[in-house]
Amino acid sequence: PNAAMSPKITVELLRQLRQAMRNTKYIAEPIQAYIVPSGDAHQSENLAPCDCRREFICGFNGSAGTAIVTEKHAAMWTDGRYFLQASQQMDNNWTLMKMGLKETLSQEDWLISVLPENSTVGVDPWIIAADQWKNMSKALAGAGHSLVAVQDNLIDAIWMDRPTRPSTQLLTLGLGFTGLTWQDKMTALRSKMAERKISWFVATALDEIAWLFNLRGSDIEYDPVFFAYAIVGMNTIRLFLDIKRLAVPTVREHLQLDTPSKAELSVQTAPYESVFTELQAVCASLGPKEKVWISDKASCALTQVIPKAHRTLIPYTPLCLAKAVKNATEIQGMKMAHIKDAVALCELFAWLEKEIPKGTVTEISAADKAEELRSQQKDFVGLSFPSISSVGPNGAIIHYKPLPETNRTLSLNEIYLLDSGAQYIDGTTDVTRTMHFGSPSAYEKETFTYVLKGHIAVSAAIFPNGTKGHLLDSFARQALWESGLDYLHGTGHGVGCFLNVHEGPCGISYKTFADEPLEAGMIVSDEPGYYEDGLFGIRIENVVLVVPAKPKYNYRNKGSLTFEPLTLVPIQAKMVNTDLLTQKERDWVNEYHRQCRETIGAELDRQGRKEALDWLIRETQPIA
Amino acid sequence: PNAAMSPKITVELLRQLRQAMRNTKYIAEPIQAYIVPSGDAHQSENLAPCDCRREFICGFNGSAGTAIVTEKHAAMWTDGRYFLQASQQMDNNWTLMKMGLKETLSQEDWLISVLPENSTVGVDPWIIAADQWKNMSKALAGAGHSLVAVQDNLIDAIWMDRPTRPSTQLLTLGLGFTGLTWQDKMTALRSKMAERKISWFVATALDEIAWLFNLRGSDIEYDPVFFAYAIVGMNTIRLFLDIKRLAVPTVREHLQLDTPSKAELSVQTAPYESVFTELQAVCASLGPKEKVWISDKASCALTQVIPKAHRTLIPYTPLCLAKAVKNATEIQGMKMAHIKDAVALCELFAWLEKEIPKGTVTEISAADKAEELRSQQKDFVGLSFPSISSVGPNGAIIHYKPLPETNRTLSLNEIYLLDSGAQYIDGTTDVTRTMHFGSPSAYEKETFTYVLKGHIAVSAAIFPNGTKGHLLDSFARQALWESGLDYLHGTGHGVGCFLNVHEGPCGISYKTFADEPLEAGMIVSDEPGYYEDGLFGIRIENVVLVVPAKPKYNYRNKGSLTFEPLTLVPIQAKMVNTDLLTQKERDWVNEYHRQCRETIGAELDRQGRKEALDWLIRETQPIA
Repeated sequence: PNAAMSPKITVELLRQLRQAMRNTKYIAEPIQAYIVPSGDAHQSENLAPCDCRREFICGFNGSAGTAIVTEKHAAMWTDGRYFLQASQQMDNNWTLMKMGLKETLSQEDWLISVLPENSTVGVDPWIIAADQWKNMSKALAGAGHSLVAVQDNLIDAIWMDRPTRPSTQLLTLGLGFTGLTWQDKMTALRSKMAERKISWFVATALDEIAWLFNLRGSDIEYDPVFFAYAIVGMNTIRLFLDIKRLAVPTVREHLQLDTPSKAELSVQTAPYESVFTELQAVCASLGPKEKVWISDKASCALTQVIPKAHRTLIPYTPLCLAKAVKNATEIQGMKMAHIKDAVALCELFAWLEKEIPKGTVTEISAADKAEELRSQQKDFVGLSFPSISSVGPNGAIIHYKPLPETNRTLSLNEIYLLDSGAQYIDGTTDVTRTMHFGSPSAYEKETFTYVLKGHIAVSAAIFPNGTKGHLLDSFARQALWESGLDYLHGTGHGVGCFLNVHEGPCGISYKTFADEPLEAGMIVSDEPGYYEDGLFGIRIENVVLVVPAKPKYNYRNKGSLTFEPLTLVPIQAKMVNTDLLTQKERDWVNEYHRQCRETIGAELDRQGRKEALDWLIRETQPIA
Repeated sequence: PNAAMSPKITVELLRQLRQAMRNTKYIAEPIQAYIVPSGDAHQSENLAPCDCRREFICGFNGSAGTAIVTEKHAAMWTDGRYFLQASQQMDNNWTLMKMGLKETLSQEDWLISVLPENSTVGVDPWIIAADQWKNMSKALAGAGHSLVAVQDNLIDAIWMDRPTRPSTQLLTLGLGFTGLTWQDKMTALRSKMAERKISWFVATALDEIAWLFNLRGSDIEYDPVFFAYAIVGMNTIRLFLDIKRLAVPTVREHLQLDTPSKAELSVQTAPYESVFTELQAVCASLGPKEKVWISDKASCALTQVIPKAHRTLIPYTPLCLAKAVKNATEIQGMKMAHIKDAVALCELFAWLEKEIPKGTVTEISAADKAEELRSQQKDFVGLSFPSISSVGPNGAIIHYKPLPETNRTLSLNEIYLLDSGAQYIDGTTDVTRTMHFGSPSAYEKETFTYVLKGHIAVSAAIFPNGTKGHLLDSFARQALWESGLDYLHGTGHGVGCFLNVHEGPCGISYKTFADEPLEAGMIVSDEPGYYEDGLFGIRIENVVLVVPAKPKYNYRNKGSLTFEPLTLVPIQAKMVNTDLLTQKERDWVNEYHRQCRETIGAELDRQGRKEALDWLIRETQPIA
């Protein structure tokens, strides 16, 4: 339901791709299969249009999917979220491979089953991660085939109107937003490198590079990042990006490109594409014991440049870890951003209350109104992800995005779920509120209350320093489980500061066991839910900050942590069955609403938004 | 504190071992290092005396440790539980390698740092798991060394008075104890094999073989198992064990060795040692697509017999999974065993109450008394693990075992913790109770109550079918965490039915992410604790059965599960601060005690154990 539903006609495209697979312009010998992963060269979750190659070849535009084309077949693997959408967007040249079903072959097994003996399978090494390459290569080799890197992307070769790679204007962030200069961050990175006897670090994740240099861009929708690589040595900083971007004086000054500075803090810039040859040069000059750090999720192409003896793969880079722990300035910025965001939402909900009875508000217009109200706030940049604005049964579709053909009108009879957020220069927001503008049923209130109990259980949890977020996931489910209910998604994700709304290395999920321990200063979401297919969806999401807690005792001097909500938007009391809350939970709700009223009330007052202030005051009355 | 504390003098032994490392009788070329892992050829947790090779060479007799001897050095790796003990048991020929400390080299790195160029490192392939071999081999190869399998164990070669491998009398179990004949189990195993297109299965874990054949032995203290291997094909059953054991008519009849039976259910027996050549013969006759199942924890020696193309390594064998889900007969047997066990413990606690004031009861004599009382119960076989009988500060040592030099007297002033269990022919028990026979302090009561809240939170948890046990671990810690407290061990382990007291594939721990989902019929322990170094230890452990739950709703028809306590021994109300309990928790305690009184009371009455019955009735008064 999230996308245009007529299948893309791919007969001609497939013919052209198969021709390219035999064309010696691109490969020495014809290949018998070509793999088209989704993803760019930077492990990005969202993609720039020029990187939507899998969508181009098969028509399916969901966030996860891999297409493989052989001489005779074309197949596309995706997961349960997208079975319906993919089947509607692909024509019958394509076989939909439903991942997670027992009978579905893996990509490797399928290839082995359809390929002639001694086949060659090609893939663009820039958009496949090194470990995926390794697994695929091994499986194919075991069956007598081989995997080869095709340097020219064959989709690009046949994609006539392929958009160019974006090169948006760069924004420089000062100390007032970042708390640390990029030079400070560089020094901290190098001390981590020295600690582990690492000579070079290759940064490939766009949000890590943006964070390191205190720069932002808008190359990818929702993510304030820009296409770049960086290579950092103990005395060298190389930044690879579209050189045209450096024509701007503020950027030149920010990076001190024209000022003589200490050699080890002077930035050498080079074209985006030259990262490959520059990394080769760096590696050619390595001493026998020198080591190079690169993410284990980096592209095969870049990873393999580093000789195995010098390569140290890491699940989370030092930048990823440093970026996750927000400093005082970033925390202050995130708080400000959440106050502004709450102002916009209070105004939205007050407006909805007035407008819904007229029958003129739809999922799309409500989302647009939310965006409009947010855009009135200071330092607003854009949304942080596509708004999930869903009425009634649409709320049960977890990744729903309203489209003209699914657009439902808000009413007094159905639950409304709005999961939305924005980028402000001082911070990133992500909040979900579930509301009923008429009279919710007893069942709707009951399930909402279980979700609220789960939300509170996480938010109020006290846990030892060093605890990984996944250990808190069951707290969010306990009340639902007791009634035989559950939700089939994780409970929380890391949130960037004017960066990606989803970031590692921490989270709260039954699925992520590779998460890093929670630390004071980390910021995650707390978003349990309940979804009744065909009827409604409920989710209550706050962004919360990890803060030290001071319980009665301090076992082995480990110290304790808890969460402080950054999101300050009232939780609709009308939806709560207070009989199901414990006294502690009622106290939590009342204290939360007291904070909302105090903090957001003051800002609404300052901004002269009277109607929203009245709404806030009414919605934050203590519950009994 | 768990063992004799004078170091073993190893000068002469090390001289002899180094001589053996150069002796062409055992190896073609001298080896420069020899690895002595702890463990037998069956991945056993407990070892027969003949398999305690690491203890023999270095003196350290803890449960975990690996010794490595080079021409000049001898080093032994163990973890934090054993640093003190190992340092006391080893002489200064040995370097203690403290695992878990940053500065401690891994075995691989240490070897690389001390070995001359191009060295050869030897190990007995029967007592190293295939994956450990692989990792070690790879690391050594990377540094120019090689790992070789030494077929004759070099410790055995110098161990003059090495005990022989036990060959105890086998016990045959009838349908009344097992619920399924071994033929039924064989058929079920084969249908799992057929489902996955597997031709052969190699059983190496002793408890799996005992379970499969409905046989028990006593080759290893506490574990009712016997040394054996089994190889099962679709038409073949081969059992490898000491052939002398088959002289007993009941065993011959049980296995139908002298009765003509269907070919596919006729057992071919062969000597224990012949498993290697027999598996070679099986593998030599494999068709091109035939697959052989073996545990990924099986020995390198046996694993490598199976050519890679035919080898399918599995984390949990079908026997391990089938054994974990107890059938109705096994559940009934486990219940009976726990009733008998509770009778013995009620009598013990009543006796302790009388005797402690006299000042004559010690940790050792209390444990002996518990064993004596258990041994009076029907079908008692022995203990299921060494009793942890600990007073005051000894209780804070999690794996404490009283020894004459540490033996403390029970008193009215200190907490007493008893973690003990038994093997009965109908089931295995494991129970911990923590008692105060005088007046506990407010702090002791407070922490005991947090532990009790954790115990109840797990025991009363309702969770969806398919939930893995590790997701319940945090429930056990929530109350402790809220007060800044914690315990540094898992919350529960699988329990066998007249088999090992620790078994896979399920458990409740923050550490085990490789556990299989909980299923109705599985049996685990629920044992949160709290330990105050130098003062006291608290643990409350029940063995609990996974049973279907019937909550109000049934999300996606998944069904729900909960636990039913099998252990029915009162939890000391005197230790509880009832103000800290919720009404639900008080109800749980009262309902639990009602069951104890009803079920154990009836049995105490039947056995005429009047004093224990009086004690039980007093201890199961409802709390307010």
